[in-house]
Amino acid sequence: MHHPSPSYPSRVQLREVGLRDGLQSIATQLPTEHKRAWIRAAHAAGQRELEVGSFVPARLLPQLADTAELVAFARSLPGMVTSVLVPNLKGAQAAIAAQADSLLVPLSVSHAHSLANVRKTPDDMVAEIARIRAERDAAGSKTRIEVGLSTAFGCTLQGVVDLSEVLRLLQAVLDAGADTVGLADTVGYADPRMVRERFEAGRRIAGDRLDCGHFHDTRGLGQANVFAALETGVTRFDACLGGIGGCPHAPGASGNVAMEDLVYLMRSMGIATGIDFDAVMALRGQLASWLRGEILHGSIWKAGLPKTLLQAPAEAAAA
Amino acid sequence: MHHPSPSYPSRVQLREVGLRDGLQSIATQLPTEHKRAWIRAAHAAGQRELEVGSFVPARLLPQLADTAELVAFARSLPGMVTSVLVPNLKGAQAAIAAQADSLLVPLSVSHAHSLANVRKTPDDMVAEIARIRAERDAAGSKTRIEVGLSTAFGCTLQGVVDLSEVLRLLQAVLDAGADTVGLADTVGYADPRMVRERFEAGRRIAGDRLDCGHFHDTRGLGQANVFAALETGVTRFDACLGGIGGCPHAPGASGNVAMEDLVYLMRSMGIATGIDFDAVMALRGQLASWLRGEILHGSIWKAGLPKTLLQAPAEAAAA
Repeated sequence: MHHPSPSYPSRVQLREVGLRDGLQSIATQLPTEHKRAWIRAAHAAGQRELEVGSFVPARLLPQLADTAELVAFARSLPGMVTSVLVPNLKGAQAAIAAQADSLLVPLSVSHAHSLANVRKTPDDMVAEIARIRAERDAAGSKTRIEVGLSTAFGCTLQGVVDLSEVLRLLQAVLDAGADTVGLADTVGYADPRMVRERFEAGRRIAGDRLDCGHFHDTRGLGQANVFAALETGVTRFDACLGGIGGCPHAPGASGNVAMEDLVYLMRSMGIATGIDFDAVMALRGQLASWLRGEILHGSIWKAGLPKTLLQAPAEAAAA
Repeated sequence: MHHPSPSYPSRVQLREVGLRDGLQSIATQLPTEHKRAWIRAAHAAGQRELEVGSFVPARLLPQLADTAELVAFARSLPGMVTSVLVPNLKGAQAAIAAQADSLLVPLSVSHAHSLANVRKTPDDMVAEIARIRAERDAAGSKTRIEVGLSTAFGCTLQGVVDLSEVLRLLQAVLDAGADTVGLADTVGYADPRMVRERFEAGRRIAGDRLDCGHFHDTRGLGQANVFAALETGVTRFDACLGGIGGCPHAPGASGNVAMEDLVYLMRSMGIATGIDFDAVMALRGQLASWLRGEILHGSIWKAGLPKTLLQAPAEAAAA
């Protein structure tokens, strides 16, 4: 059973997706002014990658109608990488016009989920990604095209999602012009063994272009899944401050892994994130006051940092 | 960063320690009748290893005064492995007299914790283990002697616990006559990288005699730590139904990893436990009614099993 210990990266990138993935699925509509304060505080805490919104029709997601303004604001902060979600070519055009650093196109590997969510098959989405790539190149834009393969570990509608289908679509989106790809456990079905096996298989095809893990903590395996992906060489992870986003299929259960939990996990393992834990926890408190009535999730807030980390200088082990 | 996927065991042993580790640290005193019902239901659910109590003076832990009776009852159930905790030779004599299958001697690697807990140094405990081994052999008893190296990943009193001290005491207790040894994250300070590194180092000394992981979920890393230990070849894990046991240093935070969460994790990874998930969840509901007013913990109860597992026959992957 035993095998030698992997080497771990000295640094990982944690992308805050709470402003999009979190806010889009909760009732409270956060005013633009508070979103700007969040972005400013996240930057001050050392966060350097934020998904600030989504270019979708405002009638569908009125709470994200200020995305262009937030892209402009986030881009004004030194060193900030600003990403937006776009479901189609039209959204991509808006992202390119706004000069977002990265546009993320979600593609559901589950045929049933894809149809239910965007009324397109996965292969229709591959064709849309090719159009987005052509548009980006024709515009001479530097916006990075990232594809998030959602339901990559299972689906609430169709159940099992075959690894072969994940790998087929991974290759297809690379061929269609995606710069990088991530695998997303959209519904919290992944386990760490599956994460390891799917990321390993994916990275044999895509190498470091399969660079991002997006995990939910719906069933308590979020941190285990992040660790399993980390062991395959993945060095970018999505997370939401306070674990916001929830899980519409399981009221009360958490959705996205909590940013503060990932900051703790990485710091505990001596892996640098550039993010100050105390500042993120303070921002979590601020978010709780903005979202009064919404349930925040996560684990580390209950017990706080262990004494072993309080004794050590922050990120000392990453030097 | 990448390294090949480990092979995983086809089967692991999950030991329920809620009757001792859980009940000793909560206010409600569970009547013997309910404990017997718990043991009976655990057996019916497929659980085959239980820590039923502790041989300590009843004035210290009146809630565990029925340990001898519970050992006798658990031993009457076919295939059940019955273990008890003993802090010293006197407790070991009682365990041997009761014909427990296993007696667990805790030894705090943290000098400060050991003195605070049992008023002995770690090396005094090594000497006590040698006396227990002599007693066991002289009695011609088959009771297995297991040592749990507690605070093996850090300590609330002294902070960092050096790996060199863990390994020194691991060798010492083997030399003193322990049959098997486990590492325990008594205060919830472990991270999965540390778990991996410490179990790997320990297993280079002890091989399969270092066979058990005891993790807490105080900071949300319980499942990640179990997974990390599993990757080093560990195939036995402690857990408490409903995550009872709590953490006296962090009110509201969970203590021991929840049995039902581990059953889910293993089933999700296709690793057999012999335990029926639904039966364990029903027992969790029963425990909640017995312990009204106490907070239960864990994660999987909130969202339930994923559709992918409901589609698959239980433990099919382990065939």
